[in-house]
Amino acid sequence: MAQDKQAKKLIDYVNPLIGTQKMGHTYPGATVPFGAVQLSPETDTIPYEINGKYNKDVYKYCAGYQYDDKTIVGFTHTHFSGTGHSDLGDFLIMPTTGTLQLNPGTADHPENGYRSAYSHSTEVAEPDYYKVKLEDHNIIAELTTSSLVGFHQYTFPKSDDAHIILDMMYGIYNYPDKNVWTYIRVENDSLITGYRQTNGWARNRTVYFAMAFSKPFTDYGFQDNSKKEVYRGFWRKFKMDKNFPEMAGTQIRAYFNFKTGEGEKIKIKLALSPVSTHYALENLYSEIPGWDFEKVKEAGQAQWERELEKIQIQSDRKEEMETFYTSMYHAFISPTIYMDDTGTYKGLDQQVHMADGFINYTTFSLWDTHRALHPLFNIIQARRNSDMISSMLAHYDQSVHHMLPIWSHYANENWCMIGYHSVSVIADAVVKGNVHFDANHALDACVATATHKNYDGLGYYMSMGYVPEDKNSSSVSKTLEYAYDDWCIAQMAKKLNRKDIYDEFIRRSENYKNVYDPSAGFMRPKLSDGTFKKDFNVLNTDEPGFIEGNAWNYSLYVPHAPDELIKMMGGKKRFVAHLDSLFSMQLPDKFFEETEDITRDGIIGNYVHGNEPSHHIAYLYNWTNEPWKTQEKVRMILKKMYLPTPGGLSGNDDCGQMSAWYIFSALGFYPVAPGSDRYSLGSPSVKEALVHLENGKTFTIKALGQSDQNVYVQKILLNGQVLEHNYITHSDIMKGGELVFYMGAKPNKKLYR
Amino acid sequence: MAQDKQAKKLIDYVNPLIGTQKMGHTYPGATVPFGAVQLSPETDTIPYEINGKYNKDVYKYCAGYQYDDKTIVGFTHTHFSGTGHSDLGDFLIMPTTGTLQLNPGTADHPENGYRSAYSHSTEVAEPDYYKVKLEDHNIIAELTTSSLVGFHQYTFPKSDDAHIILDMMYGIYNYPDKNVWTYIRVENDSLITGYRQTNGWARNRTVYFAMAFSKPFTDYGFQDNSKKEVYRGFWRKFKMDKNFPEMAGTQIRAYFNFKTGEGEKIKIKLALSPVSTHYALENLYSEIPGWDFEKVKEAGQAQWERELEKIQIQSDRKEEMETFYTSMYHAFISPTIYMDDTGTYKGLDQQVHMADGFINYTTFSLWDTHRALHPLFNIIQARRNSDMISSMLAHYDQSVHHMLPIWSHYANENWCMIGYHSVSVIADAVVKGNVHFDANHALDACVATATHKNYDGLGYYMSMGYVPEDKNSSSVSKTLEYAYDDWCIAQMAKKLNRKDIYDEFIRRSENYKNVYDPSAGFMRPKLSDGTFKKDFNVLNTDEPGFIEGNAWNYSLYVPHAPDELIKMMGGKKRFVAHLDSLFSMQLPDKFFEETEDITRDGIIGNYVHGNEPSHHIAYLYNWTNEPWKTQEKVRMILKKMYLPTPGGLSGNDDCGQMSAWYIFSALGFYPVAPGSDRYSLGSPSVKEALVHLENGKTFTIKALGQSDQNVYVQKILLNGQVLEHNYITHSDIMKGGELVFYMGAKPNKKLYR
Repeated sequence: MAQDKQAKKLIDYVNPLIGTQKMGHTYPGATVPFGAVQLSPETDTIPYEINGKYNKDVYKYCAGYQYDDKTIVGFTHTHFSGTGHSDLGDFLIMPTTGTLQLNPGTADHPENGYRSAYSHSTEVAEPDYYKVKLEDHNIIAELTTSSLVGFHQYTFPKSDDAHIILDMMYGIYNYPDKNVWTYIRVENDSLITGYRQTNGWARNRTVYFAMAFSKPFTDYGFQDNSKKEVYRGFWRKFKMDKNFPEMAGTQIRAYFNFKTGEGEKIKIKLALSPVSTHYALENLYSEIPGWDFEKVKEAGQAQWERELEKIQIQSDRKEEMETFYTSMYHAFISPTIYMDDTGTYKGLDQQVHMADGFINYTTFSLWDTHRALHPLFNIIQARRNSDMISSMLAHYDQSVHHMLPIWSHYANENWCMIGYHSVSVIADAVVKGNVHFDANHALDACVATATHKNYDGLGYYMSMGYVPEDKNSSSVSKTLEYAYDDWCIAQMAKKLNRKDIYDEFIRRSENYKNVYDPSAGFMRPKLSDGTFKKDFNVLNTDEPGFIEGNAWNYSLYVPHAPDELIKMMGGKKRFVAHLDSLFSMQLPDKFFEETEDITRDGIIGNYVHGNEPSHHIAYLYNWTNEPWKTQEKVRMILKKMYLPTPGGLSGNDDCGQMSAWYIFSALGFYPVAPGSDRYSLGSPSVKEALVHLENGKTFTIKALGQSDQNVYVQKILLNGQVLEHNYITHSDIMKGGELVFYMGAKPNKKLYR
Repeated sequence: MAQDKQAKKLIDYVNPLIGTQKMGHTYPGATVPFGAVQLSPETDTIPYEINGKYNKDVYKYCAGYQYDDKTIVGFTHTHFSGTGHSDLGDFLIMPTTGTLQLNPGTADHPENGYRSAYSHSTEVAEPDYYKVKLEDHNIIAELTTSSLVGFHQYTFPKSDDAHIILDMMYGIYNYPDKNVWTYIRVENDSLITGYRQTNGWARNRTVYFAMAFSKPFTDYGFQDNSKKEVYRGFWRKFKMDKNFPEMAGTQIRAYFNFKTGEGEKIKIKLALSPVSTHYALENLYSEIPGWDFEKVKEAGQAQWERELEKIQIQSDRKEEMETFYTSMYHAFISPTIYMDDTGTYKGLDQQVHMADGFINYTTFSLWDTHRALHPLFNIIQARRNSDMISSMLAHYDQSVHHMLPIWSHYANENWCMIGYHSVSVIADAVVKGNVHFDANHALDACVATATHKNYDGLGYYMSMGYVPEDKNSSSVSKTLEYAYDDWCIAQMAKKLNRKDIYDEFIRRSENYKNVYDPSAGFMRPKLSDGTFKKDFNVLNTDEPGFIEGNAWNYSLYVPHAPDELIKMMGGKKRFVAHLDSLFSMQLPDKFFEETEDITRDGIIGNYVHGNEPSHHIAYLYNWTNEPWKTQEKVRMILKKMYLPTPGGLSGNDDCGQMSAWYIFSALGFYPVAPGSDRYSLGSPSVKEALVHLENGKTFTIKALGQSDQNVYVQKILLNGQVLEHNYITHSDIMKGGELVFYMGAKPNKKLYR
């Protein structure tokens, strides 16, 4: 038994299919930790519009794959993990046999196109490995990756009519005319290069590729589905649709023909570059010089094993192991590496830059990930987190707006969601001493970002102390988040001895008070004349003044000053009553329907775990006289909101934020206010955890008497000393040591008192 | 008088307006010799299609300007000179006063748009200087350039409402959806950068710019005229149409506002780069660091003066001086420099390259320019011509087709016209010893190009000895031109001692014989079964089998073997009769109407000077017993086809080919078969010419007894020795020396006998 346990690897507990059903928006395909390539199956081709109207189903396909679908249209090389909006899906490859079909067909009639039926019974999803049988073509598809290269292995039947299709039209969130330009250059009979340039969520994104085939194709060609002529040479010297080595346009699909023997494998390596096909080729040869699929898969899985080993937990329950390590897996996918192996990358200014002394990352879903994901990285991915900040600072340096990223990907700012939460990520790293960048330059960047008067109501906020709802929408959410972000800047300024900045921003951090309506007992939209907006529904998520959270939830969003918040809301008793109601009340269906991004399972009472603004709420009991309720609620959320099944994520994983919440809470603590060095204590669900730090030390967590019933903390010892308060600090962790929770079935109401 | 003459500079004889009326397709604006920027006015906005149908008027605007137009819509930075198809017209700038208007208006109602009426009375066009009054706005516009920078100087009236418009929608040959993407980035209040990416004649062409204003603008904004949404951020953080520093889309027009005092000058420097906005900025600062307009103009004009001085002629007639030096001017515009000042450029493979040891050029209209322009360069622009060949070889190295340029511009091959005349240019330089490139590599490139079986009927030509008209159009023209090109390859191979190649290609060079129909006495389309096509009209230019020339003209196109041609066509007597008829017969109007690119003035009888395939024809009498008719016809053509007026060019100048014909013929000799070192002698129209060579030597031509009547050559002395044959060689010229023509009013029929 013991030996068996040792033999089982951590990657064996990872199930990439978790979150692929409904709202998780994760993808099941292959990627290495933070890898630039995410090679994963697509299960439908969803038009962005139908008859000129937005097609709501697009939203389901943010990651390209929906578990309930019955067909696969192909495999693409770029995916977001868990987002609530999307882009990407670059370079769809599909192997087929039989008569060449260049349209994908429909889910109902896969036989009318190149797509294929598949079954979960033939599907294998592991870290950096995906396998499935494409039934219509009798082809086994296998995928693995290195950081910048997607490696495909297709096992064909005997066929005189075998094809590899490269569909440049396919894309995720395929806006009309999304393709600005696409290009394929046939370098020789087994190597092609090209690029795809899109105008989508990213305004102008170009991804370059180089694609090598293990076997020469016999011939090739393409179909141009655009209405307009795209190659205007008056005198056409060639038959351009067949064997013409430059295929280009906005709506093209190419094919490459083969003859195959029974069981013959055709392998494809497709490398990406943010810069050029030249660098894509260099990446291809530098990362995977040969054709050994198993070796690449083993290397990728070994890399995952090393990353997962950063936290070793003990649990009797296979389900907990699966949930925990799949959360670790999902937490280690984004941000993704965005540079060539040489360090070249395209910057926000559209120039080619060299990452000097850091790895350049992209895909910053900061409204989500500043809360728990980046704080988690400060513990177990410290150097990477610092490099992510260096990447954010490069973005700032390249920004014509002179702003840090809001929501950025692939050399573009997409301006999604609200706030300027880069500053939270940076302040958290500075306060915790995880700094491999110029901290003073970073502070200047934060201040520049936080004083950009044209940005999203910020001018009003700076002059009036709040965002007036009649001038700028989501005004309460913005005011609250700006106030928290400002507090982060103040903390950083304090650490860097910049008193002027500290004074200004600590003052601004109190602006949350300006949108609190004491008569209502809620944060409430205020107008530019200083009065509160009259019509006001505290349950409606879609309520003017708010975004992705109703007034019940958002009124609790003062993570940097819970004591002040509690005082403002009428003291601890009334505050506990507010929290209790939140978790127990019944949210009418009509308000749930307007709550974005989550399933009905993502809600406990009116507490919305599937969206981020509530993620700190369960921990707020720690600031009242009833901290045991934090323990109770955290364990309830861990149990109800995270299941090791395809439908097990109650809302978008949001680039790992949902997973990071799980990891922290399962370990027994949570960063309520990143930018502080404190972690608020909850109730661990694991029996034991070893957290291996980059400084070589190990922080051990034990939960004695752990069980499903024993959710209440009776006593805590930190390095053998009784802990008198309900938090630990970052340095407690970084020094290494042991945190022991004594668990029981009943609350110890005297704990921390 | 003598002093006056000396004071007059050669640039004073240049009139850039020559050729701007009707079919010359030259532009009147500012450029330096072979400059990357061609800054010139646009006189209309011509849609490529009207109601979905091709708009024939587009053709008139190949260079953006038509002399008869009454309005100017603005000034753009890139133009072809004299082409019969077009592209370019990048970055239209227009200064205006009064209410901001962001549409150009119409020629009939300029007041409805930003365009302005203008008059030729206020217009000044000089080498590298253009000036005009924009009457609607009371603005004096002045333009000058350095190689990569366009310098604008606008003298405003007093206005609180002054604007600089940057229209990214404008373009020459504006196909529907020609703009793939355009982008403007406002770096600060007096500097912007950006690019324009188009899908036009060039399949995918991107030009980057950096644009500095001498005075800060007060505010700015843009209009997006595309139907589709181009910036899809779900949450719009900014009011994007005003003062938002990233303006992008496919159909945008930007404006920059100013207040001006009476007579205040606003200056603009706009630099181009083929690579990036970063390099555009570097080019801007390296070429024109300050704001001294006069200094830049003086430098540009001094550069022109130096180039024009390469041939100093004497003539009593101002008209001849103007025609000659404007021809020199037009000959020294294309190909244009296509690299940054650092040597970086974008290659045909879309990668960034560094020009190593040569200046990289683009705009190779080789079907035209191989005839006389590049041979002229071998004499007076020798190093540049060698660098042009290096640029062509770089194109070859970057070509996925492994072919030399056919008609290439701006990192694109547009495949226009026929043949593979790069080989003529290269062979001519190799045979004449003007080689600063790897001649053997160049020969390999020529052979690879000439054996590309998929190219334009070449597979048939190689296997059958001719292009069969039922398999590939313009089959006679192609067969004849391939045969000539093959002879060029043979000459080069001979010089490089590659006997195998010589043998193969000298054999191929006889393929012209395969399309000669002795029963008709003309070259005639042959079918793949070996029979001649039945229906056959020898006058029709649009006749199947031919392109830009009818059978009468094209049957004479065996420039490399006139003796053989004459024999084949029945001997010297019958051949002279054919030539005589050509010049004297009446071409019915209906055939002229189908003759492209030329005015009625471009024809003498059925001899079409406005198109290139006939350019050698007048010299063919030299191979008969009546060479004096060459002298007569050449002088007639010089007189009738070239006038120093806006309408004075009888056909497209074709990147300088028409002008190069003039220069050679005016000097008294012409390269009938580039690739040979011989120049066939005609009748000089100048009295005297000094040709200054790059080797420091001077070749002097004198025409004693020169007059309008004395067009016949009586005797020729080369360096004091009577010349016994009707040609000189390249080395005769390069050694320096003196060629003296004795002119008379009657033919000396014994000359050369």
